[in-house]
Amino acid sequence: MPGRGQRDGSSHKPKLRRIKAKHQRKRVMRAKDPVLAVFMWGVQHTVNEVLASAETSLLLPEDFKAYSKIRVENQYFNKENLPGHFKFKEYCPRVFHDLRKRFSVDDSDFMMSLIEQPPRYMENPGRSGAKLFVSYNRKLVIKSITSEEVALVHQILQPYHAHAVTTEGKTLLPHYLGMYRLTVNNTETYWIVMRNVLSSSVTIHRKFDLKGSTVDRAATHKEKAKENPTLKDNDFLCTGERIVIGENRTTFISQLSADVQFLQGLNIMDYSLLVGIHDPSISSCGEVKENNDQESDEEEYEDMEHGDSRNVSSDELEVPHSPSSATGHSSDVCA
Amino acid sequence: MPGRGQRDGSSHKPKLRRIKAKHQRKRVMRAKDPVLAVFMWGVQHTVNEVLASAETSLLLPEDFKAYSKIRVENQYFNKENLPGHFKFKEYCPRVFHDLRKRFSVDDSDFMMSLIEQPPRYMENPGRSGAKLFVSYNRKLVIKSITSEEVALVHQILQPYHAHAVTTEGKTLLPHYLGMYRLTVNNTETYWIVMRNVLSSSVTIHRKFDLKGSTVDRAATHKEKAKENPTLKDNDFLCTGERIVIGENRTTFISQLSADVQFLQGLNIMDYSLLVGIHDPSISSCGEVKENNDQESDEEEYEDMEHGDSRNVSSDELEVPHSPSSATGHSSDVCA
Repeated sequence: MPGRGQRDGSSHKPKLRRIKAKHQRKRVMRAKDPVLAVFMWGVQHTVNEVLASAETSLLLPEDFKAYSKIRVENQYFNKENLPGHFKFKEYCPRVFHDLRKRFSVDDSDFMMSLIEQPPRYMENPGRSGAKLFVSYNRKLVIKSITSEEVALVHQILQPYHAHAVTTEGKTLLPHYLGMYRLTVNNTETYWIVMRNVLSSSVTIHRKFDLKGSTVDRAATHKEKAKENPTLKDNDFLCTGERIVIGENRTTFISQLSADVQFLQGLNIMDYSLLVGIHDPSISSCGEVKENNDQESDEEEYEDMEHGDSRNVSSDELEVPHSPSSATGHSSDVCA
Repeated sequence: MPGRGQRDGSSHKPKLRRIKAKHQRKRVMRAKDPVLAVFMWGVQHTVNEVLASAETSLLLPEDFKAYSKIRVENQYFNKENLPGHFKFKEYCPRVFHDLRKRFSVDDSDFMMSLIEQPPRYMENPGRSGAKLFVSYNRKLVIKSITSEEVALVHQILQPYHAHAVTTEGKTLLPHYLGMYRLTVNNTETYWIVMRNVLSSSVTIHRKFDLKGSTVDRAATHKEKAKENPTLKDNDFLCTGERIVIGENRTTFISQLSADVQFLQGLNIMDYSLLVGIHDPSISSCGEVKENNDQESDEEEYEDMEHGDSRNVSSDELEVPHSPSSATGHSSDVCA
């Protein structure tokens, strides 16, 4: 695996290692929900552990099979904040630490985004039944996954990491930032954290989940009835939206090509391009984005989930800053 | 148990609790010795945990039976710093947190004293066979104890804490600051941390372990042959040392009386007064205290151990700043 710096060989291991100590604290909010409380505790714990251990940055093949497990039993202690018994497992701590770095996500920001206030639950009517949370600051999405999906991520993690390295983090693929197993009340749940691609400060007025196919690619009536529906390829053609990317076009296309090539190499074809459109003509009419409106957030992320962002193979794009999200109309394929 | 502030009843439990987050780190040294490495890791972990949970300061009876256990299993992770498997248990976290406060030992200082550099091992030729370490800054002593001693500390912890409260921390008894169980390589060890009573910046030239008895109370020839022997009652009488406490006498005697009364109340009689004497006439002759001389430290603590400082019931005093550690000579009881 590529990487900067050098890992100390054991033969050169110094007697004492300089590591970082955690001794200063900032006030954060803990969640009442036990799973969420353990999640927040575990993220805090594991980020600090990886910071303490991450002197050497060259990843080895074994780092892709690594984990860190911790079991906590508190008797008459800390019951206000946490369940008395729980377990927390982080998968491939150094790999995700490295991915965060390559995706320009500072470890402290990552941690504080997840623990300063509890992530917010979002209704997810999607097919997967996955639970979705968004960090209080909207920067990160936390999604429940199955143990099979954990295995799948392990399978593709090494090429995925290599792709992040070769693209210098400039990939439109989901930015996976951490993967965990929680055991609370003897129930195991698995979670993956990724960057929220629709976290920009401007309102996304329309969203499309595009696969480049017209076969069975229209949003349902139920979906369309929503305030912020995620529309599909045929809807895109019907509404006649046209995306003019402008000066970033070359960069965008080359990113997309590299991503598609990567997915092809893994024989993955189940992916889509999530397009979020910010319409300045609407916003300029006096509409104000309510960044702190939880309900509005939930709608958005519910739809993002529907737009296959949950899938390892999905390919997402947000084009809210496109200088000319021009709209035209065409009814070529409309019924 | 006395205490300031109020503990939230569960009926008043807020949905979200403000706690403190650890997200800033300072560089520290980790130990190569696995037990020491786990000790340092555990102290860091538990101090942070108690700081995160210590919103409420009123101690309840259950706090004296409390513990916090953590088990860590790292696979291909953090092996440079820690064993792959270990367990760490802190006894009565909130009680010792409260004791540290009452003994004016800041939690962060406590933690950093123990983790910024590894504690130093000291030879302990004492009868107990206990292992002794001193923190790198000489402020704290770490001593191995038996599981029976852990049980004994639990037995006396409630009255001991009450004594610390009523004396406002001004007791000559050992200042117990933390008690832990470590499991490394499937071997359990128990440790207690206390303030180092001989940590002053001036050299202690003579040390006496005084029980107020002359029966079998002379240091052995072997002990006397040492560079810094711990002498006993008959040696004290022989050398004719006289301690003039000066203006602090009233305070000192009342502290001593309160401590003795406390020990009597628990039917404890196996205690002694550890007297360390700094002789300004020696120091003024050009002797320079080498604060960073590890070997010199070890000698001192070896003797402190010999001086029963290991015993729950011991009563220790350091009078290095006594304005007039005058010496007289008397041979009443000398052979």
